[in-house]
Amino acid sequence: MNWIEDDKNYVWHPFTQISKAPTPKLITKGKGTLLFDEEGNSYIDAISSWWVNPHGHSNPNIAEAIKKQVDELEHVIFADFTHKPAIKLAKSIIEFVGAPFEKVFFSDNGSTAVEVGLKMAIQFHYNLGKPRKKIISFKEGYHGDTFGAMAMGDKGTFFEPFENFVFEVEQVHAPIPGKEEEVVKAFEKIAQQGNVAAFVFEPLLLGSGGMLMYTPEVLDKLLSIAKEHGIICVADEVMTGFGRTGKPFAINYLENKPDIICLSKCLTGGFLPLSLTLATNKIYQSFVSADHKHTLYHGHSFTANPLGCAAALASLELTNSQATFTAWEQINQGHQKFALKLKALPAIENIRIIGTIIAFEVNNNEAASYFNSFKVDFKNYCFENGVLLRPLGNTVYILPPFCITPDELQKVYTVCLAALEKLA
Amino acid sequence: MNWIEDDKNYVWHPFTQISKAPTPKLITKGKGTLLFDEEGNSYIDAISSWWVNPHGHSNPNIAEAIKKQVDELEHVIFADFTHKPAIKLAKSIIEFVGAPFEKVFFSDNGSTAVEVGLKMAIQFHYNLGKPRKKIISFKEGYHGDTFGAMAMGDKGTFFEPFENFVFEVEQVHAPIPGKEEEVVKAFEKIAQQGNVAAFVFEPLLLGSGGMLMYTPEVLDKLLSIAKEHGIICVADEVMTGFGRTGKPFAINYLENKPDIICLSKCLTGGFLPLSLTLATNKIYQSFVSADHKHTLYHGHSFTANPLGCAAALASLELTNSQATFTAWEQINQGHQKFALKLKALPAIENIRIIGTIIAFEVNNNEAASYFNSFKVDFKNYCFENGVLLRPLGNTVYILPPFCITPDELQKVYTVCLAALEKLA
Repeated sequence: MNWIEDDKNYVWHPFTQISKAPTPKLITKGKGTLLFDEEGNSYIDAISSWWVNPHGHSNPNIAEAIKKQVDELEHVIFADFTHKPAIKLAKSIIEFVGAPFEKVFFSDNGSTAVEVGLKMAIQFHYNLGKPRKKIISFKEGYHGDTFGAMAMGDKGTFFEPFENFVFEVEQVHAPIPGKEEEVVKAFEKIAQQGNVAAFVFEPLLLGSGGMLMYTPEVLDKLLSIAKEHGIICVADEVMTGFGRTGKPFAINYLENKPDIICLSKCLTGGFLPLSLTLATNKIYQSFVSADHKHTLYHGHSFTANPLGCAAALASLELTNSQATFTAWEQINQGHQKFALKLKALPAIENIRIIGTIIAFEVNNNEAASYFNSFKVDFKNYCFENGVLLRPLGNTVYILPPFCITPDELQKVYTVCLAALEKLA
Repeated sequence: MNWIEDDKNYVWHPFTQISKAPTPKLITKGKGTLLFDEEGNSYIDAISSWWVNPHGHSNPNIAEAIKKQVDELEHVIFADFTHKPAIKLAKSIIEFVGAPFEKVFFSDNGSTAVEVGLKMAIQFHYNLGKPRKKIISFKEGYHGDTFGAMAMGDKGTFFEPFENFVFEVEQVHAPIPGKEEEVVKAFEKIAQQGNVAAFVFEPLLLGSGGMLMYTPEVLDKLLSIAKEHGIICVADEVMTGFGRTGKPFAINYLENKPDIICLSKCLTGGFLPLSLTLATNKIYQSFVSADHKHTLYHGHSFTANPLGCAAALASLELTNSQATFTAWEQINQGHQKFALKLKALPAIENIRIIGTIIAFEVNNNEAASYFNSFKVDFKNYCFENGVLLRPLGNTVYILPPFCITPDELQKVYTVCLAALEKLA
């Protein structure tokens, strides 16, 4: 069997322009931070495979939990029925995330988690008999690729073909440093005009939008304006959750808490698709009614899949441990030192760090965009040297699994630096 | 730990009105067609846990495949990278489904599979430089709960709170017996007005809409009208796929083939969330371009998750076997005999069978609707007697795993009949 030939013949890869796509790399094994190809070459997964992997590939604890569950109960319908992995996960997550969240709704991925959050927010007003029609989001945001998620995200190239099929959203710029005042003003103006059901946002870090970072202070201000106007606040922590920002969740940096929080990616330790939408009791209670129209009619076939729940429980145990908290610190310290080296390079701009993520732009005199050709050259160089990095256009970022060793992290920095010196 | 108490405290169940919900049943084990509670009572899962389970709970072949995969490679990013389970699944599925499909796009659930199909159809016209703005679907259809899927589904109670947030769709009634001519006329009129990008439909069987069945002949007519007007046809086989209708796919009954087909539910043998959207080469080629705007910018973190692919491959091997084809026949014959008994009951109407599914209405002088109270009494009676059945309002249906034994199937009929005699 010629695997690459068959890949070309049968597989349509995500986010990939077929005419320009390089031959995909065939990965046959994962272990810790390493991915292996068929020849046994290893690559440090320095982006945690699209940001999902906290504790390493094929982590034995998580693998064991799935194996145990698969012999017991692989799945059961979750309406009228329940099972221990879901109950235990719901309770553990509520305890781990903390106030003000009380209830957990299960779905399958980040897009659905955010759409469920949005539906809860819209229907909250509907259930109170005061429907509202507007949504606020960040112009540079990304919340997934389903139609509701697309509506709230960046209206750029990605979603242009579908612009007639998504609802209108009031968008303000992400309040990155220097833009805070302008954004707060714009946000306040929309809020004051009324009729806003929800504010949906990625807290402190906009991932696909280019690893844009902004302060807790300005987000606290936006949340307090939103709350003043009865706007339901939906935090999309699909990528920021479970320690990426150096605290368990980005909202741990805030004074004001959202009403709804959406979790996925690292939730299952990078093993399986699963997502959670957590809501406050205020939200939940608005759905308790004698009128069946006040029900949240949402569900997927595999809602609260026991295998995903078992993986998530095992991953949560690893996350909620001193070893992991220490890893967050150590990765952050590594990034801080690496930033000093980057500062010596003239083409590197806007170096920023939050928790376990470092990002910066490479100014190579091309248009700064997702389609920047630097991206291709850079990722090829790194991969040939044993490191998986995958810039967003000219934005380079490092987002490693928490289990990365000091030596491995050092290698990521060394290869990244060599690539920059060669290409930037 | 009081599991049911914790369920109540932390879990928000799908499609469930909290105020009226009965205590959920705690399931701790699955084996074959049986679900077990903590006391060791067993229940025949006669609806295949929301229609996902073909080969029984915790089927050992599928469990083994997952266990093997989880030690090798649990997951890897699927842009720029690939892996054997995905390649093998894509090839096997293309061979199993047959012409005219050539390429496989992976996502996580039925909603995303259909939204991907819709996006392919919309962007196909966009990529050709002739964007179209209209979509046709069946008024009684159901395609999932994300915003794009909601837009295409039944506009009834389920989605009322979100009506300002979904795009407009041209809807015709499902062409059930007696309505064929009217529907064809209405469909043709919309098609002739032009500007229709896609026709999205559940072939031969509308599941959540009330197990409505219609003939291949009328669907062939609609497809031929669509093709005449360059409308891309998207078959949502999320529930009908993998043998439910007595052939591998509902489209196997048709002369005209759709351009896109969406698969999920039974795909992984009921173990894990995974879905596929298959496209013809005509669709795929329209995305091959020097212009990056012609790329399908869609993807989920766990796109082509190796564990889901491994499960799907093991399930496909079981499905594509004489034993399973025979089971389809035997279940169908059982249903045919059961139908004769049902005909003797005066309150039973509109008995219909397709492949492994039998459905009928109970006319108990209440409004025929999803919210019919008969549903609650009926499912309680059956469950207390060891059978999981879960009517859609006053529509009762039996949709068993293919591995159900003749004795088990007989028990389902007996309990169902006793419930009807008592309650109808």
